[in-house]
Order: sequence, then structure tokens, then C-alpha cells
Amino acid sequence: MDTDELAQRLRAGERRALARAITLVESGRTDHREQAQALLDALAATPGHALRLGLSGTPGVGKSTFIEAFGTLLTGQGHKVAVLAVDPSSARSGGSILGDKTRMERLSRDPNAFIRPSPSQSALGGVARRTREAVSLCEAAGFDIVLIETVGVGQSETMVAEMTDLFILLMAPAGGDELQGVKRGIMEMADLILVNKADGDLKPAAERTRADYAGALQLLRRRPQDPDGFPKAICVSALEQAGLAQAWADMQALAEWRRENGHFDARRAAQARYWFAEEVRRGLLARLDTDAQVRARMDRLGAAVAAGEITVARASAEMLALLGAAP
Amino acid sequence: MDTDELAQRLRAGERRALARAITLVESGRTDHREQAQALLDALAATPGHALRLGLSGTPGVGKSTFIEAFGTLLTGQGHKVAVLAVDPSSARSGGSILGDKTRMERLSRDPNAFIRPSPSQSALGGVARRTREAVSLCEAAGFDIVLIETVGVGQSETMVAEMTDLFILLMAPAGGDELQGVKRGIMEMADLILVNKADGDLKPAAERTRADYAGALQLLRRRPQDPDGFPKAICVSALEQAGLAQAWADMQALAEWRRENGHFDARRAAQARYWFAEEVRRGLLARLDTDAQVRARMDRLGAAVAAGEITVARASAEMLALLGAAP
Repeated sequence: MDTDELAQRLRAGERRALARAITLVESGRTDHREQAQALLDALAATPGHALRLGLSGTPGVGKSTFIEAFGTLLTGQGHKVAVLAVDPSSARSGGSILGDKTRMERLSRDPNAFIRPSPSQSALGGVARRTREAVSLCEAAGFDIVLIETVGVGQSETMVAEMTDLFILLMAPAGGDELQGVKRGIMEMADLILVNKADGDLKPAAERTRADYAGALQLLRRRPQDPDGFPKAICVSALEQAGLAQAWADMQALAEWRRENGHFDARRAAQARYWFAEEVRRGLLARLDTDAQVRARMDRLGAAVAAGEITVARASAEMLALLGAAP
Repeated sequence: MDTDELAQRLRAGERRALARAITLVESGRTDHREQAQALLDALAATPGHALRLGLSGTPGVGKSTFIEAFGTLLTGQGHKVAVLAVDPSSARSGGSILGDKTRMERLSRDPNAFIRPSPSQSALGGVARRTREAVSLCEAAGFDIVLIETVGVGQSETMVAEMTDLFILLMAPAGGDELQGVKRGIMEMADLILVNKADGDLKPAAERTRADYAGALQLLRRRPQDPDGFPKAICVSALEQAGLAQAWADMQALAEWRRENGHFDARRAAQARYWFAEEVRRGLLARLDTDAQVRARMDRLGAAVAAGEITVARASAEMLALLGAAP
């Protein structure tokens, strides 16, 4: 299938075309990369208008159950929902946090939903680029809600927050002490905190945890992109499908307010700038890995530095001169 | 004072020469940088042989009191001790975690100790380079123990572990739940965990905490650079100056074992390679900030990306071509 045909089928919402296009942007092969670039250019003329939701939650908070229930609520309202995963650990485990989609059985069979597991990260870096490009592809294929989920570890939360319109933290009921486990930087990114498992015996604990988080949110500096009452913390039960409509109403209200007040577009623009600068930085550093001559020189100088024959300062100055990047 | 004279006075152990040389490596000025480089080259011929200790502890664990007591123990044994600080937050606070040295009053007046507060980080990046170079200067000035302290936040712990021979975590007695607060990655870097404040009422809690950490350490994968019994967790009381001699004996035993088994030199060599590669990466990226033409082009393309006139992929490819780093 050539690029034009792939673009056409993708725009028509063909799931197989979308899956194939995502495989293309995930590929490390040079010819695939060129085709992916051409495809993205072809689709850029008719950009999508999806709401991009970031969702972070550590293993055990019920993320899969939540996405299954929340996604089904959205498709039931006529939305087309794409779910992408960013899993920083999948390089190690070789697997995907979504497993074989069995954890979201109902949603994965829903014709208005598209679930894409995290790829095993064999290629160097580029997780962010692949995910951003996959978002574009989903939007071009007519999905109006794109949910990017990540586990709450490492830098992946910042990455996901930098490519979504709303950033949502999914939490489990906890003892008061455990609040400390959430890093301040992560709290500062949150637009909405959902305390899951507010059902059965855990209901009182969930309400206490919600109140704790609400209190913690109030201690943070007020952000210009938040209307009164945001960021907020609410209780949900993915299991009993309770509170999900409220969560969605809050997300819509916040997105709507930001649209009306210019913050929505401003955030997208800032994100585009951010990723442009990131891509440039990544490209500059890529020479160190891809250029065989550069690598050989790095190895030689690295060995000399390790042997104490040359200082780090001199060796790096020499290397940078070779790269045409002397200060 | 010219470079030769500065090098000579520094080698003679003159504190003012050392302080001046560190100011030089901390400077962002180009002429200072050249002078610093020349000085480091001049000193490289006669490298020092200090034991480099990394010490991490969050505010409140009693780090200053510990360094004061531990440093005084070491100078009392005839050692010359330099204390450097890496404080990732000092850019914000504009200050230094060591304050005006009042927190280590006795040690700061000790003729065999040298305390250097963390500089306010006005210059871009380069904290690691400045600190590494300051270590070299302290060694050249005859200090045989260099202690680099950092607060337990952000990337600073990794940075300090990558430039020291032993990495020590200073902890406070805690409830069992709080163990979770220590990230696994930090635990994996530790050679020795010191649970401070094992005095008075806190003694039983300190012992419990020590046992908890000892258990946590045993769950980690065995590292080749550790003899039997390491990494270990012990109790100390900086206040009562208890356990400090034991801590020092443990550090010496570990360093000695690693020296005999080749791990000491191997770690130094790996660190030299690491910092060489880091300096090259930093130098490559520096062009984006220092070259006015490059910056202007970045701004223009960034604006076009933000306005949706060009995709991130195309804009970054164009920029990389301009930088001579096209893939």
C-alpha cells in the first residue's frame, strides 16, 4: 500500500490502516521513517480535533478497569476513543502494560474504540516522538478523544503531560502517610485527581484520601490555566461505574473554559515548541550513536580518559572540535 | 596571580589559592574558563589520591551535624578533609545548603578542613563539571578525603554517586511506611546507609529503621563491587558522636577491598568515561544556547511549529540540516 492510499484509508477511519500507520511511525527502519514522515505531511493538511487526555496511575490503582469503564461510557455517548500507552519499563519487560488487551476486553471489542499497546522499545529513544505521531494518526482517523496512559514512574508522566490537553492522576485509597509518595512535581501537573475504588469497604478511605489530595492541591500555587475549583480531586469507582460521568463532566468543563480563555491553544502551541526543541536536541545527540567514525573516536578518547592520559575537559574539547561544535 | 603561581600555591596547600581556583572553575566567563582549563592541565601531572565520599540526605536528617562530627573525627586522625556541596535547589533559593558555614562552625574553623558552599547556579548547566573540577583542585591541594554532600532530590544523587568512590545515604529514624519514600534507584547506588539520631528517645526507632533498610538492601541484586556484608546499614548519632568511628572503619574496609580487587580503579575509569561522554553531549547542545544565529532560527521555526504552519518532524529536520547534523 503506498502512502497516498494509506492516508486515504486512514482518513476513512479504517482500523487496519491506522494500526499499520502506527507500526510505521514505531519502526526504526530508515525507509519506514521516510514513509511515516510523508504520511504525517499528507495528513497535516486536515488536522484532527481530538481532546487529548493524559492518565497516570501506578500498577494496582485499577487503571485498566478505569479505562475500560470510562472508555465505554464515552463510546456510549457517541465518541470515538483511542487509547495509547507509554510504558517506560516495557524495554525491560519486553511486554506491554496493556498485555494482550485482555485487561480491557470489552473496550477492545468496541467498534468505536482503538487500543494500542506500548511497543517494546527496541529502537533508541524516540518514545515521545512515536507517541506524539500516533496521536496525530488517531486524530486523522477520526478519533475525537485520545487517551494516553502511563505508569507513574520515571519521566513518562512529564512526557505524557507535555503532549495532552488534560493530565489526570488515578489514585487508590491510601493511609494519610502515603500521600507523600506522590512527588510534588507530579501534583503540580495534575488537572484532575481521581481516587478510584470508592466502593464497598474502601469507600470511607477513598473519601479521606480524596480530601487529603484536595487539601494538597490547594497548597499549590494557583495556575492561570485553572478556573475556580480546579485542579480538583473526586472519588470514582471504575468497578461500580460510579463517578465516571462526573469525571467526564469535569474534564469537559475544564477543557471548555480553557478553550474560551485561550489557554487550550496556548498549551498546544507551547507543547509544539517544546517537542520541536526536544527533537532538535535528540537529533544533535544522535550523531554520537549513528556515525561510525564519531563512535570510534569517542571510544578512543574515552579509553584515554579512563586511563588518565588526558583530562575530561581536554578530551571533550577535542571531540567537540571534531564534531564542528567547539565553543 | 598567573596560572603557574596559582598552581604552585595550591599544591602547597594554601587555602586562599584553593578558594580562588574553585571560584575560577565556577565562573562562566570565557577567560576564566581558559585559565581554569590551563590550571587543571598543570595540576593533572601530579594527581591527588583522595578518597571521594558522596553523602546524600534530605533536609532534617542532621546532615550538617553529621558532617561536622564526622569531619572533626577525620581531621583528629590527621586527615585533611574537603567538603563540597551540590544543591540542585540553590538556583531557586539563590542560597546554599551550607548557609554561611554557621551550621558547621567547628569544622569550618578547623585548619585541616575546607568547606565550600554550593554556588548559586547562575551559569547554565555545568554543576557536575564544576564539582568534578573542584574535587581535582581539593585533591591537588593535599586533601585526602573529599566529601561531596547533596540533598536527596532530583538527579543530584546520581550525579554525586557518579563522581565518588563510596556513596553514603544518611537517614533519619522513621516509621516502617516511610521506607517507601526512598527510591529503589537510590538504594541501588548506596554503599552504606547511616541511620542518624540513634540517641535518646529515638534510639529504638533508629534500630528498627536500620533493620528495615538492612532488609531492603538484602533484597537488591548482589553487586560485584561488594564484599560480604556490603552494602550495609548501621546506626549513628552525630549528636552524641556515636557510631562514627564504626562508619569510618566500614568505609575504609570497603574502599580497601575494592582497591585490592580492582573495583576501585574500574569505577574511577568508568566515571571518567561517563563524564567525558556527558561533556560531549553538553557541548553539542550548548550551540543551541550560545550561537545567536542558531537561536534566531530556532525561534523562527519554533513559532512556525506553534502556529501549526509546519510539523515538528519537518521543522526539526530543517534545523538539524542547518546544524550539519542531518540524519
